[in-house]
Amino acid sequence: MINMSKVKILSKGSTNIPWQDKPEGFEGLVWRHTNNPIIGWNPTPSTARVYNSAVVPYEGEFIGIFRADHKDGKARIHVGRSKDGLKWDIEDKEIQWKDEKGNDYQPDYSYDPRVVKIEDTYYIVWCTDFSGAALGLGMTKDFKNFVRLENPFIPFNRNGVLFPRKIHGNYALLSRPSDSGHTPFGDVFLSESPDLVFWGKHRKVMTKGAAGWWQGVKIGAGAVPIETSEGWLMLYHGVSTTCNGFVYSMGAAILDIDNPSKVLYRCKDYILTPEESYETTGFVPNVAFPCATLHDETTGRIAIYYGAADTYLAVAYTNVEELVEYVKNNSVLASGDEKEWR
Amino acid sequence: MINMSKVKILSKGSTNIPWQDKPEGFEGLVWRHTNNPIIGWNPTPSTARVYNSAVVPYEGEFIGIFRADHKDGKARIHVGRSKDGLKWDIEDKEIQWKDEKGNDYQPDYSYDPRVVKIEDTYYIVWCTDFSGAALGLGMTKDFKNFVRLENPFIPFNRNGVLFPRKIHGNYALLSRPSDSGHTPFGDVFLSESPDLVFWGKHRKVMTKGAAGWWQGVKIGAGAVPIETSEGWLMLYHGVSTTCNGFVYSMGAAILDIDNPSKVLYRCKDYILTPEESYETTGFVPNVAFPCATLHDETTGRIAIYYGAADTYLAVAYTNVEELVEYVKNNSVLASGDEKEWR
Repeated sequence: MINMSKVKILSKGSTNIPWQDKPEGFEGLVWRHTNNPIIGWNPTPSTARVYNSAVVPYEGEFIGIFRADHKDGKARIHVGRSKDGLKWDIEDKEIQWKDEKGNDYQPDYSYDPRVVKIEDTYYIVWCTDFSGAALGLGMTKDFKNFVRLENPFIPFNRNGVLFPRKIHGNYALLSRPSDSGHTPFGDVFLSESPDLVFWGKHRKVMTKGAAGWWQGVKIGAGAVPIETSEGWLMLYHGVSTTCNGFVYSMGAAILDIDNPSKVLYRCKDYILTPEESYETTGFVPNVAFPCATLHDETTGRIAIYYGAADTYLAVAYTNVEELVEYVKNNSVLASGDEKEWR
Repeated sequence: MINMSKVKILSKGSTNIPWQDKPEGFEGLVWRHTNNPIIGWNPTPSTARVYNSAVVPYEGEFIGIFRADHKDGKARIHVGRSKDGLKWDIEDKEIQWKDEKGNDYQPDYSYDPRVVKIEDTYYIVWCTDFSGAALGLGMTKDFKNFVRLENPFIPFNRNGVLFPRKIHGNYALLSRPSDSGHTPFGDVFLSESPDLVFWGKHRKVMTKGAAGWWQGVKIGAGAVPIETSEGWLMLYHGVSTTCNGFVYSMGAAILDIDNPSKVLYRCKDYILTPEESYETTGFVPNVAFPCATLHDETTGRIAIYYGAADTYLAVAYTNVEELVEYVKNNSVLASGDEKEWR
C-alpha cells in the first residue's frame, strides 16, 4: 500500500508495526485490537499488573519499557522484548539504574514511562519518587545499561513526554504539574533544555476543559508526539470526574511544528473512552491511558499502546490522515491554547 | 561596638540598619520593634495592606519591594524608599515590567517578593500568575527600570529565595513546591542555574515536621540566606494547622556553606510566633511571615522584616551569635535533612 495521504508523517518509524484493518462498518476513528488486552494479570512471577507502558522499534524488533506493579503493590519499570509488538517477553526484574558516575541510583518507585529515541540514544521519562512524585529521566543505548540523569523538575509532576528531536536547538519536554494527591486539576506545559540538565523557557501549552466534559478535570500528554506535515500530532489523556471517581479517555491535538506551545487543533470529542470490560473493570476502573505509539510513515498507520484500568496493556489502531483530518475538522480550543503563554 | 562574636557574618550588609537593643529582662531570641507595625492599613491611595515584603540597602539608604494588596483585593508589588528602614515612602503604582526585548510583560498578580543583590544587579523573585501560582523572576539596577526574565519553573510554587552569591559557579534558588490551593503540605528544595534561564540539579533541602508541630504542615524559605562562618543562616516560616486555619511562625536553620542542600542545624522551637494583636488579628489572623533581613556584619545585628496577619509590615531584631548558637544547641532535624537528597 502506497500512502496517497495529504498528511505525511515525518518522524522515522518502522514498517513492521502491529496492524489490523479497520473493521467493516466501524464508524470511529480508533479501533481496538481484536485480541485485547495484549498483556493480562500476573505477566511475570513478581508482577501483578503491566499497563501504562512505552514501546519503540529496536534492531528490527521492538523494545518495551513497562510499568509493572509488583505483588507488593509498588510500581516499577521493566524491560521487555517482542518480535511483533504484541507478544511480549518481559523481564521479571526491574531496570537497575546507575548515575553518571556509575553509582547505584535506584528510585523508590517508578511508573508511567515514556521512551523516545533522539539521535542515537533512547531516553526514558517516568514518574519517580523525589520526596513527592516528580519526573525521572534516564538514558540507554542498548536497553541493558541504564544511566539516570538529573530529575528535570522539583515535585509534583507525573506526566513527562519528550519530543523526538530538538526544536530550535533545545530538547523539549511536555509535562503536567500536579499536587501531592490524586490531583483534581492539570494542564500541559512545555519546557526546554540545552543539555537535559537545566530546564527553562517554560510555556503553557494546553488547558483542561475546552468544549468537552471528558477532559474537564485534567489533561496530560500521552505518547511521544509524531511529527507530521500538519504539525506535531499529540495523543493525550483527558479526565472527567464522577461520583465514583475519575474516567480517563484519549484525545488528540495538533501543535505548531516550530512552536509546540501553540495548539493548532484539538479534538472536541474523545477518540477512545473506556467501553470494553478490560477498560471499565480492573484495579482502577475506567482508565484508557495512552503512553506510546508505533507508526509506519510509508502507510500512515499508527498503533497506539494504552493502559487499561491500571491492569492491562491494550492496543488500538488508526491512520494519520483520518485522525489529523478529523481533529482539524472537529476542533475546539480552550482559552489561550492558541498562543505562546509564558 | 566591636563584634567579638565567634560567629562572623560574611555577607555584605550595612551599618545603618534599624536597631533597638534587646529589652531588659526579655528572655527570647528575637524581640519586636517597639513601634510595630511599621506599616499599617491603607498606606497609599490604591493599596489596602502592605505586608510580606523585602528590603535591601541601596546607595546609603534602603529600598523596599512591597507586597501591596490593592483595594480591588489583588496583590501587586511596589517600590518604596526609606532613609532609616522604618519610615517608608511607597509608590502608589505597581512596578511596570518589560521583558528582555523591551515589551510590556506585566503579571496578572504578584506577591511575596524577595530581593537580593548578586554582583551589581538586584534580583526580585515573587509569586506570579503562570496559569497557576508560579515563581516570577526579574532584575533591576536602579529600581526604576525593571526587566522580567523567564519564569524559573512551571507551576505551582509560591516561595522563591535566591542566594546572595553563586555557589560552585551557579545561581542557587530555594523554593517550596505547592498545589493550586492553600496547600496543606510543603518542603524546601534547592535548584541551580548557570544563567537564570535554565534550572536543574534540584535537591531536597528540608522537610516539614521535624520535632515541632509549629512546622508540621509546611515550611518555606523566608529571607535571603545570610552567609556566616557557621554556614548559611536561613530564616524560614513553619506552618501549623488548627480548627480555624493555619498559623505561620518563624524558624531558623543553618545550611552547609558549600552544599546548602544539607541542613546542619534547625531550631526545635519557633523563634517568633503570632502573639501581638497585629499578628493575631487582621485580614488573615495568626501569620508572621519573614521575607527579608538587613544586617550589619560589623556588629552582628540583624533586623528581620516580616508580614503580620497579611495586613501589616513589622520588624524584629536579633544578633547573629545568639541566634546561631541557639539553633546549634537546640537543633532537631527531620529525616533526610542532613543529606544531599536528589
